[in-house]
Amino acid sequence: MLDVCLAGTAGMVPLPNRWLTTLYASCEGSSLLIDCGEGTQIALAESGLRLKPIDVICITHFHADHIAGLPGLLLSMGNIGRTDPVTIVGPSGLRHVLQGLLVIAGGLPFDIGVVEIDPDGDEIRNGFVQCGRMLIKAFAADHVIPCLGYTVEIKRPGMFLADKAEALGIPKEYWSRLQHGETVTVPSSAGLTSAAGPDGRTVDAAHTSGTTFMPSAVMGPERRGIKILYSTDTRPVPEMAELGRGADLMILEGNYESDEQIDKAIEWGHMTFPEAAETASDAGAQELWLTHFSQSIEDPENFADNARAIFRNTVVGHDGLRKTIDFKDPDPSVPQE
Amino acid sequence: MLDVCLAGTAGMVPLPNRWLTTLYASCEGSSLLIDCGEGTQIALAESGLRLKPIDVICITHFHADHIAGLPGLLLSMGNIGRTDPVTIVGPSGLRHVLQGLLVIAGGLPFDIGVVEIDPDGDEIRNGFVQCGRMLIKAFAADHVIPCLGYTVEIKRPGMFLADKAEALGIPKEYWSRLQHGETVTVPSSAGLTSAAGPDGRTVDAAHTSGTTFMPSAVMGPERRGIKILYSTDTRPVPEMAELGRGADLMILEGNYESDEQIDKAIEWGHMTFPEAAETASDAGAQELWLTHFSQSIEDPENFADNARAIFRNTVVGHDGLRKTIDFKDPDPSVPQE
Repeated sequence: MLDVCLAGTAGMVPLPNRWLTTLYASCEGSSLLIDCGEGTQIALAESGLRLKPIDVICITHFHADHIAGLPGLLLSMGNIGRTDPVTIVGPSGLRHVLQGLLVIAGGLPFDIGVVEIDPDGDEIRNGFVQCGRMLIKAFAADHVIPCLGYTVEIKRPGMFLADKAEALGIPKEYWSRLQHGETVTVPSSAGLTSAAGPDGRTVDAAHTSGTTFMPSAVMGPERRGIKILYSTDTRPVPEMAELGRGADLMILEGNYESDEQIDKAIEWGHMTFPEAAETASDAGAQELWLTHFSQSIEDPENFADNARAIFRNTVVGHDGLRKTIDFKDPDPSVPQE
Repeated sequence: MLDVCLAGTAGMVPLPNRWLTTLYASCEGSSLLIDCGEGTQIALAESGLRLKPIDVICITHFHADHIAGLPGLLLSMGNIGRTDPVTIVGPSGLRHVLQGLLVIAGGLPFDIGVVEIDPDGDEIRNGFVQCGRMLIKAFAADHVIPCLGYTVEIKRPGMFLADKAEALGIPKEYWSRLQHGETVTVPSSAGLTSAAGPDGRTVDAAHTSGTTFMPSAVMGPERRGIKILYSTDTRPVPEMAELGRGADLMILEGNYESDEQIDKAIEWGHMTFPEAAETASDAGAQELWLTHFSQSIEDPENFADNARAIFRNTVVGHDGLRKTIDFKDPDPSVPQE
């Protein structure tokens, strides 16, 4: 399962009652942060989210409201005893920006890994970053400066086919390893029965003392996992619907409340409530959260219908909005022996 | 008069209920900010302080909790239409730090002037920066990295001596200019009477058509102005009592609540409540505000007596604490003709 919390929902300017947009996602002890504007470490504290498990920080782009909080956050992570490396992901030029910002964050007690992604490059389609079980992919957004959107997925292996494993004569002590994606070699002496068929089994030529099984021999087809898509500071782009196809949750900006501001939205590279709703609808997403509200919108909830008329399952974001997304049926990663 | 507001009082880490330490001072339309940690622009908004009139920003040192909010603050100042230059003052190396931080604050619609002060240099004793009527001087603090403390003064000219001006026969239309520090030449035809004595009067040799008067001819001795001293992230240093002599207000850190933490205070270059109180007492200050509280101090007010036992007029700072400091008698800058 994936826990997500939208700890801030403001765009451009942090307000006394609205933190800058930031998303915290966690799964089995690893946490991921997307964007880190001024005050994000306080926003996380207010939402009761822990800094120490943050393994990966993804930055959409280099406008201050999305990255200015990074030095303070990293220093605070160091102060509370983080020593494991932290990976920072962002558009090309990230290394240069970090060199600048970290001039006030010397002596961090952990290493920083930097992953630069060229929004216009070919690699963006195949590259990914792992954060525990979370698989992070980027796509090119369409803003006034280079900008990335992100999908976060938890892949889900197929069901473990116990009948098949038994038919293959694989001793039970090997089941869990196969279930977790490991290829195993069962020694001849381990009680492999003659019932074992050729399906998925390869005899190890070099070591005839055993038989090697790949997970595919005993696992059903990959099942539906969990997927969220996050994109702010962008015009609608086709990749959102493509990559967000059937997403459990799309988190998109509603920088402007209605299409009356469409000219400004185009000029400044942002989306309106209706545009975000159309994007979620095109993607066939389960749910949409709106965020990154212009400071001119006092209460975004007042304009919820502008989105709900197009995509019914729209939630107007507020600081601290959270949700646990479960797999749709029992998690097969829990051993079923 | 000088308006001061302590918009934040936290040390090191911004907390959900305590902004990082920052001081906003304003006089006759010019404003000065000392330190700008993460979230300072929100702290100022919460205290109802305007960003646009900030002409000078003084930075004590380059730890993130004192400067990380600078890019966001400057961008917000630009967004609300500031076009006049802004002067940033700080220890040597400021230019390098700004180059780093401003990588995420491109396109500012105003120029930035940089004043670097070497805490160990000779110039520090004589140099000053003007912010409207406010005169800013720096002194070397004693922290784990180079750090400055600041005094802010409003000088106050002497009384205008109308009797003397009349005795010198200076026509009334020249009084206001003399009173404001201007040297004036009164043409012979302007009714200069024979009663004019030699006191303060010099006959302009090149242009015998007039008589030149300097302000000193008609002004009494300089009177007591307004002075505040601000210093955080430092061990006590003798300069505090010297430069803060008789200050209307000293704003000093009380990073640790009692002398039981003296070892930590020495190790990390900070002051305790009693040390700050002793400093204010040594200086003969009128009032002391404590600030820059360690996050381990939940309610600093609980430890007020640790300082008040030494310096009675101690105020334990809280976000938004403010005061208007008036001249002690009528302001002579208001024309008295």
